[in-house]
Amino acid sequence: MSFTLKELAELVEGDLRGNPDIEVNAAAPIDSARPGQITFLANSKYQPFLNTTAASAVILHPDISYDRTASIRHPNPYFAFAVILDLLYPEDDYYRSGISNLAHLAPTAILGNDCSVGAFTVVGDHSTIGSDTVIMPAAFIGRNVTIGAHCKIYPNVSILDDTRIGDHVIIHSGTVIGSDGFGFARHPGGIKKVRQVGWVEIGYDVEIGANCGIDRGALGATRIGNGVKIDNLVQIAHNVQIGDYSIIVAQVGISGSTKLGKGVILAGQVGLVGHIEVGDGATVGAQSGVGKDIPAGKIYFGYPAREAMLAKRIEACLSRLPDLFKRVRGLEEKIKD
Amino acid sequence: MSFTLKELAELVEGDLRGNPDIEVNAAAPIDSARPGQITFLANSKYQPFLNTTAASAVILHPDISYDRTASIRHPNPYFAFAVILDLLYPEDDYYRSGISNLAHLAPTAILGNDCSVGAFTVVGDHSTIGSDTVIMPAAFIGRNVTIGAHCKIYPNVSILDDTRIGDHVIIHSGTVIGSDGFGFARHPGGIKKVRQVGWVEIGYDVEIGANCGIDRGALGATRIGNGVKIDNLVQIAHNVQIGDYSIIVAQVGISGSTKLGKGVILAGQVGLVGHIEVGDGATVGAQSGVGKDIPAGKIYFGYPAREAMLAKRIEACLSRLPDLFKRVRGLEEKIKD
Amino acid sequence: MSFTLKELAELVEGDLRGNPDIEVNAAAPIDSARPGQITFLANSKYQPFLNTTAASAVILHPDISYDRTASIRHPNPYFAFAVILDLLYPEDDYYRSGISNLAHLAPTAILGNDCSVGAFTVVGDHSTIGSDTVIMPAAFIGRNVTIGAHCKIYPNVSILDDTRIGDHVIIHSGTVIGSDGFGFARHPGGIKKVRQVGWVEIGYDVEIGANCGIDRGALGATRIGNGVKIDNLVQIAHNVQIGDYSIIVAQVGISGSTKLGKGVILAGQVGLVGHIEVGDGATVGAQSGVGKDIPAGKIYFGYPAREAMLAKRIEACLSRLPDLFKRVRGLEEKIKD
Repeated sequence: MSFTLKELAELVEGDLRGNPDIEVNAAAPIDSARPGQITFLANSKYQPFLNTTAASAVILHPDISYDRTASIRHPNPYFAFAVILDLLYPEDDYYRSGISNLAHLAPTAILGNDCSVGAFTVVGDHSTIGSDTVIMPAAFIGRNVTIGAHCKIYPNVSILDDTRIGDHVIIHSGTVIGSDGFGFARHPGGIKKVRQVGWVEIGYDVEIGANCGIDRGALGATRIGNGVKIDNLVQIAHNVQIGDYSIIVAQVGISGSTKLGKGVILAGQVGLVGHIEVGDGATVGAQSGVGKDIPAGKIYFGYPAREAMLAKRIEACLSRLPDLFKRVRGLEEKIKD
Repeated sequence: MSFTLKELAELVEGDLRGNPDIEVNAAAPIDSARPGQITFLANSKYQPFLNTTAASAVILHPDISYDRTASIRHPNPYFAFAVILDLLYPEDDYYRSGISNLAHLAPTAILGNDCSVGAFTVVGDHSTIGSDTVIMPAAFIGRNVTIGAHCKIYPNVSILDDTRIGDHVIIHSGTVIGSDGFGFARHPGGIKKVRQVGWVEIGYDVEIGANCGIDRGALGATRIGNGVKIDNLVQIAHNVQIGDYSIIVAQVGISGSTKLGKGVILAGQVGLVGHIEVGDGATVGAQSGVGKDIPAGKIYFGYPAREAMLAKRIEACLSRLPDLFKRVRGLEEKIKD
Repeated sequence: MSFTLKELAELVEGDLRGNPDIEVNAAAPIDSARPGQITFLANSKYQPFLNTTAASAVILHPDISYDRTASIRHPNPYFAFAVILDLLYPEDDYYRSGISNLAHLAPTAILGNDCSVGAFTVVGDHSTIGSDTVIMPAAFIGRNVTIGAHCKIYPNVSILDDTRIGDHVIIHSGTVIGSDGFGFARHPGGIKKVRQVGWVEIGYDVEIGANCGIDRGALGATRIGNGVKIDNLVQIAHNVQIGDYSIIVAQVGISGSTKLGKGVILAGQVGLVGHIEVGDGATVGAQSGVGKDIPAGKIYFGYPAREAMLAKRIEACLSRLPDLFKRVRGLEEKIKD
């Protein structure tokens, strides 16, 4: 299937520069694209490849001076590229194959129209799967689970009892939703498990990566808001609340009862202690350790996390710290004299 | 099912203040509890909610002055709450449904009385499952595995050959017990795998969270002591030894042959190098990097981990480090004069 | 099965010291080995056990003075030990049991000679499994997947569509290969998923631990070179390239499009940002945070990662930082006078 640049530019409401009849049938990275392919430039690190790319067309920002090949100009080139990808690479129906006779559905499970459930997948009693949702093979859906419409659940996912999931949600392989929170009461006789009687609620348009763990609430819900995107190997403890459209990068860990506002960004390997709040639109840099509330809109990083301006100054000082010791010794010697 | 405060106070041997005939049928967090529900206060951060909670009763420490509602006083309110939760929320028998005819049991597997094995679960040859243990659907139990009585194994758990597990053990979804340790011998021709011929031994009353990896010993056992509690996404390398009643929070990584004493606490995202020892009752703060032995009873944190007192002083110094550079420059200028 | 020291020494081309007719039938750690067992010494930390070990023989470096028991001397004792382990503990055929009639193979899947596929394992359409490869029970192999010969895929592994895997590859339980990369375009209307239309390519002789996540390329391939060894719970983002014979320790996270050269070593819990390069033979210390390119052959560590020499000096300075503040205060007071 191929498309003219005219068609693509119109689709994304972009500004076409060059021959509108050029056809492309695939997308590729700027440094390996070949004729017949379209690419994009969103990260300035790759700008030198504009001089060498063999792509038939490039999607890029209007302000960049470029005419080696045809281009589609868009103020948000990565977004325009994403829209074009959907056209060039439509999802096929391979896993939309209906209910496998090797699936094990409880008698009271309710499946919407055009659902698919793969081989060796279990759906427990009183669970409801929305229309057009695909549960791939080898997934486990427990009891009293609600999964919305147009969702995709990958193999080896475990969705435990009482979980509620909205529409258009994607959950990647190996992820566990609704495991018990880490609640234990130490006492002289040992360590007593605190029953975890809550559940997990996930909004609409959420994507959760591979091999994450999202614990059920101890009491009440662990809540993932609408539009939240979670990368691989992320740990979300009991009763965490994540505001809409937040972005949680790989290997982040969020401790119990901590609340993120809307549009929060946590970079990779960040850790947050429990019972704190991160305000709307705050950003935390990679590997940071957050022990206190972060106000809305702020950028924090470091271990422990501090406001970015201070954290950067400290980081710069550290490189010069051995030198500072020498300078102080020099001063001490001068003073001694 | 509802219970009077008198019944609950007697159960936990607590001191009841208020009307003993008040009935509760559920538990809820202090900030969202409603009439008919019981709540607890264990973290002083939530103490202000004593002024507003709509709960019918609060479990709290005897020393706190409070009479807005009825209360059950207990020196360990979280423990008392845990005991009451067991009564209010007894586990039901849904997954205690016997041996599924969709399970695949090897002919030489031995199942105790009242075992349950779910659909699509495999139990290998010469493996023994103790009485009253529940293996949920879609779990894998290898060969020569011993699982004790009254255990619960969640979906998509992998328990590999030769693993030995005690009684009353809970293993959450996605966790892998008995994967090969990371043992390789570099040599001029490449990197040679060192066969991992040991196994994993887990004591009684252990709980292991979701998506952990616990490697078998290279030679001999990787050992998890009695009463140990492990959170999600924890990595335990070959031949690690974890002493009884230790607590390992999410995303911790423990390298090969390292030994933890009894009652050790490792907070979230801590990393330990191999071949070291952490003494009984030691505590390591979140995200710390431990490269050396830690003596019994000590509190360490930081990267690299240092004794808490020193680590805290360094942390405080860091915030003032840019200022220190200014002060030194000031001194240098004065001296120059 | 037992072997004489003469046989073992000849196998590894080692230098035998002591009685060549001594027989051993097992291997054990130096501190717990018993008569009839062979052990090794590779880490000098364990050298004191030479004085007490009950092993019948020790494999160790020729330069170490030792004659308490028989010994096999080899310049690379750990490698020699690995070779001997293969002889003492040959893998048996338990999981080489052919195609289970409880597996679900797509009609167009192609299986090589002497393949095994376990119960409840799925193999999708147009996928090819090489000869002598063992896919254990409860694994998921998607569509258009190629797996080479002599591989071993453990239970609950998910290998998603279009993945290509070489010969002699081992993948441990719970690992996910080919999950979607974390690609999202923020725009005023929300966050748009960027379709991940690439794939994963894995070379030969690769081993990947438990519960890892290896994302498919956004466009093109995520590539794991030949001989690469990856530990548990490692996150590898879309379009990462890992050079041959690199070693990635547990809980490392590598962000999108980052390239590792050949023979790179990343210690546990290291994090790398995206779009950077780590040169051939570079080593990064545990828990380091890497935000910039690392030149070939260098050793880096710290947060942020710096060259080892500087990083160590900074680390040493940090311990003396509280004292430095005192010294500066002292100077200030002297100057004031």
